[in-house]
Amino acid sequence: MPSKPCILQQNDFGGDGSVLIGICKSVDPELESYVAGGLPRFDIPRASISLENKIRYWPDGTVFVSVVDPGVGTERRSCVARLKSGGYVITPDNGTLTLQVAGEQISEVRQIDEAANRLPDSAGCEIFHGRDLFAYTAARLAAGQITFEDVGPAYPVEEIVTYQLDYGKIDEEGAHGYFSGCMQTFGNLETNIRIRDFEALSVSQGSMVRVVIRQEGKTVFDRAVLYHKSFGYAPPGGEILYNSSTGFMGLGLNKESFMERYGVGVGKEWTIDIKP
Amino acid sequence: MPSKPCILQQNDFGGDGSVLIGICKSVDPELESYVAGGLPRFDIPRASISLENKIRYWPDGTVFVSVVDPGVGTERRSCVARLKSGGYVITPDNGTLTLQVAGEQISEVRQIDEAANRLPDSAGCEIFHGRDLFAYTAARLAAGQITFEDVGPAYPVEEIVTYQLDYGKIDEEGAHGYFSGCMQTFGNLETNIRIRDFEALSVSQGSMVRVVIRQEGKTVFDRAVLYHKSFGYAPPGGEILYNSSTGFMGLGLNKESFMERYGVGVGKEWTIDIKP
Amino acid sequence: MPSKPCILQQNDFGGDGSVLIGICKSVDPELESYVAGGLPRFDIPRASISLENKIRYWPDGTVFVSVVDPGVGTERRSCVARLKSGGYVITPDNGTLTLQVAGEQISEVRQIDEAANRLPDSAGCEIFHGRDLFAYTAARLAAGQITFEDVGPAYPVEEIVTYQLDYGKIDEEGAHGYFSGCMQTFGNLETNIRIRDFEALSVSQGSMVRVVIRQEGKTVFDRAVLYHKSFGYAPPGGEILYNSSTGFMGLGLNKESFMERYGVGVGKEWTIDIKP
Repeated sequence: MPSKPCILQQNDFGGDGSVLIGICKSVDPELESYVAGGLPRFDIPRASISLENKIRYWPDGTVFVSVVDPGVGTERRSCVARLKSGGYVITPDNGTLTLQVAGEQISEVRQIDEAANRLPDSAGCEIFHGRDLFAYTAARLAAGQITFEDVGPAYPVEEIVTYQLDYGKIDEEGAHGYFSGCMQTFGNLETNIRIRDFEALSVSQGSMVRVVIRQEGKTVFDRAVLYHKSFGYAPPGGEILYNSSTGFMGLGLNKESFMERYGVGVGKEWTIDIKP
Repeated sequence: MPSKPCILQQNDFGGDGSVLIGICKSVDPELESYVAGGLPRFDIPRASISLENKIRYWPDGTVFVSVVDPGVGTERRSCVARLKSGGYVITPDNGTLTLQVAGEQISEVRQIDEAANRLPDSAGCEIFHGRDLFAYTAARLAAGQITFEDVGPAYPVEEIVTYQLDYGKIDEEGAHGYFSGCMQTFGNLETNIRIRDFEALSVSQGSMVRVVIRQEGKTVFDRAVLYHKSFGYAPPGGEILYNSSTGFMGLGLNKESFMERYGVGVGKEWTIDIKP
Repeated sequence: MPSKPCILQQNDFGGDGSVLIGICKSVDPELESYVAGGLPRFDIPRASISLENKIRYWPDGTVFVSVVDPGVGTERRSCVARLKSGGYVITPDNGTLTLQVAGEQISEVRQIDEAANRLPDSAGCEIFHGRDLFAYTAARLAAGQITFEDVGPAYPVEEIVTYQLDYGKIDEEGAHGYFSGCMQTFGNLETNIRIRDFEALSVSQGSMVRVVIRQEGKTVFDRAVLYHKSFGYAPPGGEILYNSSTGFMGLGLNKESFMERYGVGVGKEWTIDIKP
């Protein structure tokens, strides 16, 4: 069994990610590191959801790096959060840890002391902390070259920056939320309505629900939609409401793009109401 | 030498693929796994061609996963095919194995018993078998935690779903086919005319051929085109017919995009005739 | 510590890169290889800059492959350059090594003897040397199956093909250059003005400069712009001039796309003048 934890780096800047891996290899050639560069730009809530998903599916002990960092180089804190399950998350403290705070997964947090933990010879560039600070600190931590204490001063977990969690609501009329994300490849949408909340409505798979989508209050879609296990239960091109793979309700078409056909996008201005 | 085979997962849903790697790492930290997420969506013939290409260039014994799965969550079979060369292919049995069946590469096939081989705590989501069933089964098989027999019941290789192979035809007038794929980056097209078939026409590299492209029968391109070894033998922007890297005839421009300049796309409605 | 060097392959053709990894694994399952497929197509200067960046951040000894190769299959040389820092660069000799020559990083260079170093059974395809020649040679070199001498005949380092280096100029009026690259995700632009040259103007971070952008001589942008450490020092949507992460001056907006808002692109026709 490998003696050192894997490093998984997610970010919104994309590119080829190879420099982020190279830094880990330069710190210690034994380190295994992976880069996931496809987050929507500047979308901190989505970064927190993606991080949650990665924590769920990667081994305990993994060192996670998350860099959605519109404030890079400004006064926002850089931090390392220690997870109760083992492992760490290294990130700007800008709301990315919201779901992990809400889930009480963090045992301790430390602010990265840049004087001690910055990649040598990287002074003069303040736009790429993902490389010069976060990847380098992750590598040294995973390699055992620094301890958690060496990262910098601890601060209370309660001080971690969080955004207001905003899940879809359930009432006697149905479920009400907005589109918080999408899967570009297929043109499917993801809502902020949690499957576990939707289940309270006791809608059985295979039944029809009424779905109303509004853009800034104006109705752009109002139809009966099949709620079922997966796309293939709808006819080709037919609408389908389903349990998505990240714990939220999803909406799509069978083998076509819902987003393209109906011109629907992502954001709080795009609301969805689901009525059994 | 690593004692466990690599896992190579191809799919059409893209994303960052890190969850698919995380599942393998969670099953066994020693597993090496790779994700190739760029297949054209829903294109099962293309998945079979890409799989064939991967089998050719990866070591014998590799565990391949292929997830182009428009029927995910419906009644289609999930299977593991054992390759005669060693290794396995794990895939929905939806035509993806067509070329491997045609090439007589498969020695046995088993349907995945979902009750025994599904990722723990993944019930309730039926849209992501690539994660919950295929990656997990691949990892356990590669790690030696389950045997091929543990996958589920065997069924006859003859029952594997295949699509009708449809290669370009050669006759006294020349070669006749359609565009089955493309390389988006460069705007090159790939035909369904096999190099080995085209060679029967004895066209020598460096000579001109007549290429006629029709969209649903209507001619959209009719020109003399250079057949040669590579792009650089045509003048900048010039047309070139060449032996592509997957065993089929290709068509492109030197340093420009054929698809953009001539508005030509992929699919059976886009036919090509090549006349020596 | 791994006994064999990593292989890092950069290219402009993209795709999933898995075949390039598979070839390395087939040569030697112990080889670690990575693919970075996002270079702008046919852009040899950008390949040289990216290569320089990778050499900087990857361990000494790494085997680099660079395939931006519009002349693939024609008479251009294929070569292996030995780096003074250890390691090799395997590439078409088409200008890709310009910065490495300028930096006097190359100790020796050899032309690849294709008869001895081509992937078995790859004859007949001349459009994918990245696979059939470069990946295969890199793998065998990294695995120790061939020596540097086995690559082919040496030739003088002075014969390596280079393009004319063309950095931005500094004079009494300010800095003058063009846009040589961009970061598509964010819509930021990178100039050919080196940070080290710009520093001679003694502009302090936090001060305003005048930026004039012309397309083929016609002014398309003329404004006072903040020069500062990072994006977040400008108001949302505000312009910002900054030290980019590759050693050149960069230009962008805070949380918006400069390229989209102002319709500015990349190339020598897009000039920039910066006046303190």
